[in-house]
Amino acid sequence: MKLTETHQTALQDILTWRRDMRHFRPDPLPEAELDHLRAAMDCTPSVGNARPWRVLQVRDPGLRARVRADFERCNGAAAKTYDDRDRAEYLRLKLAGLDQAPEHLAIFTETAPDEGRGLGRRTMPQTLEHSTAMAIHALWLMARARNIGVGMLSIIDPEAMCRLFGVPDTWRFTAYLCVGYPEFDDDTPLLHRKGWQRNKSTRWVIR
Amino acid sequence: MKLTETHQTALQDILTWRRDMRHFRPDPLPEAELDHLRAAMDCTPSVGNARPWRVLQVRDPGLRARVRADFERCNGAAAKTYDDRDRAEYLRLKLAGLDQAPEHLAIFTETAPDEGRGLGRRTMPQTLEHSTAMAIHALWLMARARNIGVGMLSIIDPEAMCRLFGVPDTWRFTAYLCVGYPEFDDDTPLLHRKGWQRNKSTRWVIR
Repeated sequence: MKLTETHQTALQDILTWRRDMRHFRPDPLPEAELDHLRAAMDCTPSVGNARPWRVLQVRDPGLRARVRADFERCNGAAAKTYDDRDRAEYLRLKLAGLDQAPEHLAIFTETAPDEGRGLGRRTMPQTLEHSTAMAIHALWLMARARNIGVGMLSIIDPEAMCRLFGVPDTWRFTAYLCVGYPEFDDDTPLLHRKGWQRNKSTRWVIR
Repeated sequence: MKLTETHQTALQDILTWRRDMRHFRPDPLPEAELDHLRAAMDCTPSVGNARPWRVLQVRDPGLRARVRADFERCNGAAAKTYDDRDRAEYLRLKLAGLDQAPEHLAIFTETAPDEGRGLGRRTMPQTLEHSTAMAIHALWLMARARNIGVGMLSIIDPEAMCRLFGVPDTWRFTAYLCVGYPEFDDDTPLLHRKGWQRNKSTRWVIR
């Protein structure tokens, strides 16, 4: 299939306007929208085609409350690592949309998948988690294309998440996603806009 | 910015027709094409906006030869892990396009970036490499949108790559990419088409 300028422009729009979203409207997402997000994940590259991503769509309020408590604990500990001035700035940042986002996805990586028959990951087993990261990115882009926002939470204890969800020993926690309709659009990262840091271009050199 | 059905259809086309490519035409890529790929990486999400991906565009024939030798060594060792029948099948697979691809990119992750001021990666430092994986995926999708193919090589010794390229101690090798115009298009993974394994849908359950 020959792709065209329409594809190129559309993709650049999606990349440019995709943001890590922490401000959600509480409106529910139609089931059909979640099907589109899952279909995007289905198309993600993976090492040896092992397709190791595992998705738990978290609806249970008790589970959600325990995720939120873990985030609060980890976020408080992270804040303590900054000096006074930086800490005040850190604590003013909104780093999660856990309370508003209508859908929560806990994403794990199966580190011992049957699929792929081990191909390609002998020297670099970490490529399994890289594959899951790419699947998250595919979901994120398709969400944005459908005017849905995604926030990725990493201020969380991965071991605690494995225990909380009682996943198999071979699963590794990769990310917790908040998904919903965003309160606003932006083409600039919030951390840049809030003065936490400046965006820099990709470092790329010829050897 | 409100995205439309044009964006959604275009993205699904790109996702569907993106493949891990191992068959390249040797024609050179115009510099402007590489600029588009770099621009796509610039838009990738990263933990704390740390933007930890580092790209070496490998042009030196001596470096390329040593990468190829490392791949041959690792691929031979991987083949030995299969029993006789599987090994014969494994060795028939074409797993890299190193000899034909006009551009090679060695991708590393800076594990101690200044950018982002440490935000978000205290509990999950592996999110830095996840960010690089997403940047590779962004490049991959933009390449496909521009009718360029990318192959990602992971059958390689990451420590050897760090030594070969003499990168700083804080850099971690993430992937080696072959980039060029593909010999053919496909909407089905080669490993599936060759019978190595079957594609499966994303495992997704409600909790």
